[in-house]
Amino acid sequence: MHQSAVFPTAAPVTNPAWPARYRAVRQQSTDLCQPLLPEDTVVQPMLDVSPPKWHLAHTTWFWETFLLKEYQPGYQVFHPDYAYLFNSYYNSLGSRVNRADRGTLSRPPLADVLAYRAHVDAAMQELLTRADDLPASFREVLELGLQHEQQHQELLATDIKYILSTSPLAPAYAISNEQFATSNEQSTLDATWLPVPGGIYRIGFQEEGFCFDNELAAHEVLLAPFELQNRLVTNAEFIQFIEAGGYRDFRFWMGEGWDLAQREGWEAPLYWLRRDDGWYRFTHHGLQLVNMAAPVTHVSFYEADAYAHWAGARLPTEFEWEAAARHFGAETSDGTWLESHRLDPQPLPAAADPGRCHQLLGDCWEWTYSAYHAYPGYERAAGALGEYNGKFMVNQLVLRGGSCATPESHARVSYRNFFHADKRWQFTGIRLAR
Amino acid sequence: MHQSAVFPTAAPVTNPAWPARYRAVRQQSTDLCQPLLPEDTVVQPMLDVSPPKWHLAHTTWFWETFLLKEYQPGYQVFHPDYAYLFNSYYNSLGSRVNRADRGTLSRPPLADVLAYRAHVDAAMQELLTRADDLPASFREVLELGLQHEQQHQELLATDIKYILSTSPLAPAYAISNEQFATSNEQSTLDATWLPVPGGIYRIGFQEEGFCFDNELAAHEVLLAPFELQNRLVTNAEFIQFIEAGGYRDFRFWMGEGWDLAQREGWEAPLYWLRRDDGWYRFTHHGLQLVNMAAPVTHVSFYEADAYAHWAGARLPTEFEWEAAARHFGAETSDGTWLESHRLDPQPLPAAADPGRCHQLLGDCWEWTYSAYHAYPGYERAAGALGEYNGKFMVNQLVLRGGSCATPESHARVSYRNFFHADKRWQFTGIRLAR
Amino acid sequence: MHQSAVFPTAAPVTNPAWPARYRAVRQQSTDLCQPLLPEDTVVQPMLDVSPPKWHLAHTTWFWETFLLKEYQPGYQVFHPDYAYLFNSYYNSLGSRVNRADRGTLSRPPLADVLAYRAHVDAAMQELLTRADDLPASFREVLELGLQHEQQHQELLATDIKYILSTSPLAPAYAISNEQFATSNEQSTLDATWLPVPGGIYRIGFQEEGFCFDNELAAHEVLLAPFELQNRLVTNAEFIQFIEAGGYRDFRFWMGEGWDLAQREGWEAPLYWLRRDDGWYRFTHHGLQLVNMAAPVTHVSFYEADAYAHWAGARLPTEFEWEAAARHFGAETSDGTWLESHRLDPQPLPAAADPGRCHQLLGDCWEWTYSAYHAYPGYERAAGALGEYNGKFMVNQLVLRGGSCATPESHARVSYRNFFHADKRWQFTGIRLAR
Amino acid sequence: MHQSAVFPTAAPVTNPAWPARYRAVRQQSTDLCQPLLPEDTVVQPMLDVSPPKWHLAHTTWFWETFLLKEYQPGYQVFHPDYAYLFNSYYNSLGSRVNRADRGTLSRPPLADVLAYRAHVDAAMQELLTRADDLPASFREVLELGLQHEQQHQELLATDIKYILSTSPLAPAYAISNEQFATSNEQSTLDATWLPVPGGIYRIGFQEEGFCFDNELAAHEVLLAPFELQNRLVTNAEFIQFIEAGGYRDFRFWMGEGWDLAQREGWEAPLYWLRRDDGWYRFTHHGLQLVNMAAPVTHVSFYEADAYAHWAGARLPTEFEWEAAARHFGAETSDGTWLESHRLDPQPLPAAADPGRCHQLLGDCWEWTYSAYHAYPGYERAAGALGEYNGKFMVNQLVLRGGSCATPESHARVSYRNFFHADKRWQFTGIRLAR
Repeated sequence: MHQSAVFPTAAPVTNPAWPARYRAVRQQSTDLCQPLLPEDTVVQPMLDVSPPKWHLAHTTWFWETFLLKEYQPGYQVFHPDYAYLFNSYYNSLGSRVNRADRGTLSRPPLADVLAYRAHVDAAMQELLTRADDLPASFREVLELGLQHEQQHQELLATDIKYILSTSPLAPAYAISNEQFATSNEQSTLDATWLPVPGGIYRIGFQEEGFCFDNELAAHEVLLAPFELQNRLVTNAEFIQFIEAGGYRDFRFWMGEGWDLAQREGWEAPLYWLRRDDGWYRFTHHGLQLVNMAAPVTHVSFYEADAYAHWAGARLPTEFEWEAAARHFGAETSDGTWLESHRLDPQPLPAAADPGRCHQLLGDCWEWTYSAYHAYPGYERAAGALGEYNGKFMVNQLVLRGGSCATPESHARVSYRNFFHADKRWQFTGIRLAR
Repeated sequence: MHQSAVFPTAAPVTNPAWPARYRAVRQQSTDLCQPLLPEDTVVQPMLDVSPPKWHLAHTTWFWETFLLKEYQPGYQVFHPDYAYLFNSYYNSLGSRVNRADRGTLSRPPLADVLAYRAHVDAAMQELLTRADDLPASFREVLELGLQHEQQHQELLATDIKYILSTSPLAPAYAISNEQFATSNEQSTLDATWLPVPGGIYRIGFQEEGFCFDNELAAHEVLLAPFELQNRLVTNAEFIQFIEAGGYRDFRFWMGEGWDLAQREGWEAPLYWLRRDDGWYRFTHHGLQLVNMAAPVTHVSFYEADAYAHWAGARLPTEFEWEAAARHFGAETSDGTWLESHRLDPQPLPAAADPGRCHQLLGDCWEWTYSAYHAYPGYERAAGALGEYNGKFMVNQLVLRGGSCATPESHARVSYRNFFHADKRWQFTGIRLAR
Repeated sequence: MHQSAVFPTAAPVTNPAWPARYRAVRQQSTDLCQPLLPEDTVVQPMLDVSPPKWHLAHTTWFWETFLLKEYQPGYQVFHPDYAYLFNSYYNSLGSRVNRADRGTLSRPPLADVLAYRAHVDAAMQELLTRADDLPASFREVLELGLQHEQQHQELLATDIKYILSTSPLAPAYAISNEQFATSNEQSTLDATWLPVPGGIYRIGFQEEGFCFDNELAAHEVLLAPFELQNRLVTNAEFIQFIEAGGYRDFRFWMGEGWDLAQREGWEAPLYWLRRDDGWYRFTHHGLQLVNMAAPVTHVSFYEADAYAHWAGARLPTEFEWEAAARHFGAETSDGTWLESHRLDPQPLPAAADPGRCHQLLGDCWEWTYSAYHAYPGYERAAGALGEYNGKFMVNQLVLRGGSCATPESHARVSYRNFFHADKRWQFTGIRLAR
Repeated sequence: MHQSAVFPTAAPVTNPAWPARYRAVRQQSTDLCQPLLPEDTVVQPMLDVSPPKWHLAHTTWFWETFLLKEYQPGYQVFHPDYAYLFNSYYNSLGSRVNRADRGTLSRPPLADVLAYRAHVDAAMQELLTRADDLPASFREVLELGLQHEQQHQELLATDIKYILSTSPLAPAYAISNEQFATSNEQSTLDATWLPVPGGIYRIGFQEEGFCFDNELAAHEVLLAPFELQNRLVTNAEFIQFIEAGGYRDFRFWMGEGWDLAQREGWEAPLYWLRRDDGWYRFTHHGLQLVNMAAPVTHVSFYEADAYAHWAGARLPTEFEWEAAARHFGAETSDGTWLESHRLDPQPLPAAADPGRCHQLLGDCWEWTYSAYHAYPGYERAAGALGEYNGKFMVNQLVLRGGSCATPESHARVSYRNFFHADKRWQFTGIRLAR
């Protein structure tokens, strides 16, 4: 394993106020890159993955663009071309580097990106001392920026995994013996069905604090009674599907999923490799034996849906999922999160408490059978931030619950994540309903 | 215009019983091809479009495969290779011609396909004399076959239009002066908003007779109060969107739609052409001036949705649409259908009755903002017919109401059509909600 | 087999003067299409193949564009859009239909194309009565037009074969029992090496009459002594290469050829199919057993070159080929041509005359190891006809000698045909040198 | 500009014997990478370009594979997977990383590649002490390895330029004021035509020492008298072509070149950018004004050929070029080479000596109008090294003379370089003949 000194080590967080919270969030981004080499921060082995260098710069660009330029008089931009280089998808803000070309840019180098971060962080610290005197809109964008950076932390964790996986050397991101032991737990509780009563449920954000615009407006839906499994589908269960020929029988599959699986030659989840002594998977620790008790992950919607059909069940809708999460009182302490397992993010076996519904929050994003559409009453924000969520509200599916790569403070029962049905590089898993 | 003698002319239908109904439906397929030349029946200018020859053969293959082989002892297949050549997408039934290659097959020629139809029709007429003595499953597939053939009639009408449109000669499919006069009506009633009360609505098929599996199970949904426009959006209204720069302003568009529109250079609906004296569109009669009072058609979901945003409204969900259609008592007599306008299918201006909700059935398929997913309780049929609808239930959007190219007897308020968001070659239109 | 009445039958040619020669050449084009159905004349199953309808129209466009418009006062064009529709690659003459889209145009139909031919032929017959009074440039273009039409006759024969081959029905173009018997001759003479002395040879057209610009200027080249085989490589010999693993051993192959062969899964020449009872090939008569004594054909340069390496020999250069053809006194009577075998063009076994060099003219185009470049002193003609040959003079290879699909009067020892190294749909074969 | 300490600085070469020569050649490879950052060594912005890290490793792999494993008993390979990772195109040596994926591999990092070089260099130094006692075949491969590494040095120089050019920041590779002054010389001598007599010339390697197999066998060719220009075409001359509309007039272009130029929107050589104050080009020093007196470079064959047509001339054949180079006594001291200008390789204006033929060696590779084919008598070597040149001998064109990025000791009059007609990222230029 290679160690690098380019990233400063983490400082303890002692004060939850704005400056300290900003520092803590920002620190987590660079901490995630700490085990990387400069070479690892440049490449883009597939379109969905962005170079870590780009994530570090783009999150910084957010602060510069939406807060420093707006609210800090006399702020000097770090480099005039960075606004072009590190804009992700905001058409409002002018032209940008084509997404497919992010991985061909060796310059600016990592050192310059870190200098950019330091420059912006210094200005932000100064600006944040005035946070309470600035208009409420400032604090709203500030909160959004923190949430935005947390979203990119999850992408950093999953993109780094993908980047390292493409090398035939199967390099390890980091080694951490204590935590690794935990993840080899081989038993979990039996799957059982937990009933959720039918009726009218209020769906969407209805608490205090921050939420994304796509969680609004809260509204009522009518649900028939249904049952949900008490934990995520495990690797052991998914291997039964594989061994029963699940990847070779079109009857379980959506048509587009079947065609894709044939074209790409899918035979198992992403990162899996069959060897003489069993199934292996690529992890942040390199190739490791599949843990039978842990939730299956890195499956597409197509695989999740096919598995559910094969098992005689179905995936829940996002409304059923949220109703159940509220009904069962899901808490983040139930699951595995980025902070608890940073050097080796992976979903862990459910705690063996037969009376509860496990892993609703944390471990794996759960594919739902709901399209990612606007809720009734949804309105796009004015200006560039109106592009944040609204323009993606077609052709994707909702995932719920958060994963082992999600910052814990970033999750809640109304949170709506979304991906196309074919995506597998996130920590995605399967929850059965019927 | 070219006339062809290869298609027999229509015989009158006198008896609604099975043999006569079968004859009438089958006749309508060949009638639609009557104005074509053999050359027109071969080509496939884009992937969504199938050669008319293929439609004529594939619908015939359905009868042979699912009824004659099953229920007619001693039936001799017309040609042993046709099962391979004319299977559309049924994996259960073995390999098939790649969809993208349908337009390279000059053989079998049209004459052989018509002989195939005659062979199968003769055997079917004989079989149908026993229809009432056969098991109920026979009659179910029989009904499905009739509905299936009607679906392909709509595709024939729209595919023929697309095929003829690709020739720089802009050839006319047929000329029919009387009907053409009708379609130049230049006025329509003003758009108004009609309220629909909130509450619990029962959605899905709940009448007597035939429905597709995707209309089941009927189930209840809770809707908030909403309003629907009393007619479809007209060409005049859509031109305002164009002239206001609607195709050049990303703020109204879904991200994937915007990217596609830029890449393809969209500036107006499919088939439109701007000339010095105004907007023209390609029709079954060749290039014609756009009729300002008629509903805009040949728009993708992306354009429909962008228009709605621009107009300060939105598209209805499929649940709202069906609730409204039931609330307003929609009837097929309200709209334009394939039979009434076979030589020049196009949506017509709404009748000027200010108290009603017009065009809910007929004229244009109405894009809804609902993903095409299974209803609660949906179950795929066993066997090959289970592939009919179920495997498409992701990544597409629901359209409702039927169009000017739909056979009138094929429509109902619970009918769910579905296309990907980018499709424009069907008669698709826009209904506003708010 | 289907017969069609759309093409008039051939009339005898009695007078070699211009009108009669024009009639005879034109007649051969329609004769070739006589066994086709209208459906066969529309499709374009791969980019290199043009629809027969297009060939018939494009050759007619040549006469209209270059002769009638120029030399016939008052000539009325048949249709104003045809100049756009049937231009092949002449940038000088304005825009044209994209080559890849030729197969999506069902209109104008075959009947209109034949009417176009009749219209132009009538005008040409009138114009040709004045042929001797018009300037020499007229007669030059007239001759070029006849040669051009003959080139398209060869393409018609090969494109028709390809079009029919794509149908799983393997339809026969025509049946002609007498000739078919000839082509089953199973023996041929042994391969021997014939020496050609070294020295300075004059290469290029140096006779009386017509030649293409690419055969000029005649010039001298210095050749070392070499040997040429006395006949083309046979199917029996090529099967030895296949069975020795020639398609699976990269050492015999050019790198780009090897990559292509792997990607496309080549295991034999185009049109070949291995069955339990031996190798079959698709012919104008449908699937037939491979004739062991006949020359192998439908091989790319890559296969010809790999075969030669495997056999311990090499392909001749075009200079060696022409020098040998002149040295051995090659005559067209030695080979098989389009006229002698119109209903089933295929190369035939060499006559068993051990003292001669067989098949230099006719049977198969022989791949040479010479790039298709301009000869010293070559000059492009001014105007549109300057695009005829010159702009293709890079990235292709020269083939020599003519094939069984070439009109006999179209061949000569200085003739230079040219294709990219990967092309296989022409009647191409292998002559070994060392 | 960023400086890196990862590359050791150059040590002086004092002894031309094998160990010292090996050291000097190896040193030049790392010297070229000395101004780079680790990030620059990873990316692959287009297929023709390889990451510098890959070049450094692949050249090392050559020594390990062909010499150390063969001749050094007990040699331990540095890493068992590197044989797979750094094989370029040798099918004989097993599977390899797909060329298009070279730029997605962040691991092994640069530091490991440099350790690999050190490991191999140490073993080689030891082996080379025995060089004179080993069989002649050892010394032949040794010489080939040195030549191979020099070829990759030229690729390093041109690939680095391309990699840096893709950044919108237009970063400079290095700054060297003295040399940069030289390259701004604005005048050169007038173009004149120098006659070369016709006759029989001996072509190919015919001296003592090393040559590549593709320079053999030497053989005689007959040439007609011709004239060659006394220097390369300059930027000033090429700008006249641009301004005369040369990029917009298809008449000067090969068909495939014209189509490509339209599709890619070519309007000038690669790296050129028109600004208000004139034409700029990207160089190893970033964006710089075009030097009018210097040879035009970074043109494809298509542009070179189109320019020649426009200028009423043509490109020489490779035989004419070599005959002229021998006739005029071309020497490497005439041109600019990698060593003389390492920090800013670019072609320089010709010395103003009107009596000589300038720049035949050095400055720019000169496109010839000769296909890259085997010479008469050429034989591929047995084993993996037989893949070195032979399998590329079709579909490419010969370039002659060497460039400002070629090591000076690597050039000679019989040297045959080769690229596809569309390539522009090498230092390619234009020499006119007539």
